[in-house]
Amino acid sequence: MKRVLITGSNGTIGSLLRALLGDRYEITGITRRPADHPATIGDIADLDTILPAFEGIDAVVHMAGDPSPSASWESVYRNNILGTYNVLEAARRAGVDSVIHASTNHTQAMWEVEQGADVYAPDDGRLLRPDDPFRPDSFYGWSKASGETLGRYYSDAFGLRVFCLRIGWVMGGDDPVAMDITGELVPPLPAEAVMARGRAIYLSHRDCAELIRCCLDNDTVRYGVYYGISDNPRQFYDISNAREELGFEPQDSAPV
Amino acid sequence: MKRVLITGSNGTIGSLLRALLGDRYEITGITRRPADHPATIGDIADLDTILPAFEGIDAVVHMAGDPSPSASWESVYRNNILGTYNVLEAARRAGVDSVIHASTNHTQAMWEVEQGADVYAPDDGRLLRPDDPFRPDSFYGWSKASGETLGRYYSDAFGLRVFCLRIGWVMGGDDPVAMDITGELVPPLPAEAVMARGRAIYLSHRDCAELIRCCLDNDTVRYGVYYGISDNPRQFYDISNAREELGFEPQDSAPV
Repeated sequence: MKRVLITGSNGTIGSLLRALLGDRYEITGITRRPADHPATIGDIADLDTILPAFEGIDAVVHMAGDPSPSASWESVYRNNILGTYNVLEAARRAGVDSVIHASTNHTQAMWEVEQGADVYAPDDGRLLRPDDPFRPDSFYGWSKASGETLGRYYSDAFGLRVFCLRIGWVMGGDDPVAMDITGELVPPLPAEAVMARGRAIYLSHRDCAELIRCCLDNDTVRYGVYYGISDNPRQFYDISNAREELGFEPQDSAPV
Repeated sequence: MKRVLITGSNGTIGSLLRALLGDRYEITGITRRPADHPATIGDIADLDTILPAFEGIDAVVHMAGDPSPSASWESVYRNNILGTYNVLEAARRAGVDSVIHASTNHTQAMWEVEQGADVYAPDDGRLLRPDDPFRPDSFYGWSKASGETLGRYYSDAFGLRVFCLRIGWVMGGDDPVAMDITGELVPPLPAEAVMARGRAIYLSHRDCAELIRCCLDNDTVRYGVYYGISDNPRQFYDISNAREELGFEPQDSAPV
């Protein structure tokens, strides 16, 4: 079994990955608070504390960081920039094969603001591709874009394989009908577009775990950036490279 | 006369801009050491210290930061990431119209490593475009790419106009025949390619000042990324957008 280290192993996605992939991989974690699973307790902004957790690890799933689109500069500078450097650097020093970096749709969300809310309509043909230019809507989106670029450097310079996943909208309750995502986009969306966007970018727990599994079982990609969403009728992210390079086939979908 | 603030006004480029554009703009500076020109003495990593220098300024030319391709993580994290945030944030708070951000060819230099040294041949047709993907060769290159993306955010979110200039190779002595640029690319180039690369990316003092002038006098661009080189026979950067959007026409060239 591959040995997988999840940073942020107590978070929403860390927890669902432990539940859905725990039989397939030997999973350990890094988390800031005491946990009910095998984990190093520590802050990813402190390199020395987290280094030992990377010994003997095959792949890292890097979920720790400030996940809020309204995060302050000070928070993303420390938690997302320094934290991601520390995770990549620790992985390099320990000879880890690959890092799956939790990125975000907020790296390009100003594209949506520019296009307007019609882009969320089910019959709208516009698609945003992962390699379109960065258009962050927030310090948070900027920090994740910078993390992707730092991953590219570690891949090119040190041979670390890096998968950047622009994860859609993963909810604790995993119920696409009960969504409320007020404030998800910065600047705020028109009220009538909030639900439409949520249904466009929904990613079910099962599809989320499957996307991560596709990365963990892949042995050819050197560096890639992928959107991760379920098979939603309102989708506007191009996930064709996730299908072709990773074999990702989402099984769930949000309602129209 | 427009009021222009140069960060790093005592550096190689800051000094040549003061010499060549001092009659055209009212120039002040920020520099870490006492200067022989009107300047705030301070560190761009300290926002409170530099804020007053932005009052009443029309445009900022942001040259301060660690300019070394071999800079450490710790140095670029503080001087180039925090420093660039502070400059953009100070410009926003003061209502400055535009910021010219000194970026670098090192944001994409792994492309050159991948292509091989033939890309420096005078008759080689390959061109690297500013909107090709980031491929940093160093923490330094990464830090400048992140600065470009942060500029994009400030442009989209706050209306600050941002010009990112990937400046070629500007020498103190401005003599393209006497170049020595060992160690300029990370990882190091083959010895026979070092001079070829230097002559491909040379930017004369006159052309450098003219490129900055084109940005300072422009009033239409909201955000743009441009390579800045002289009209070199070995060039492999696409500067067509600098010609078309800014009206930049280099007058000098390195020898073949």
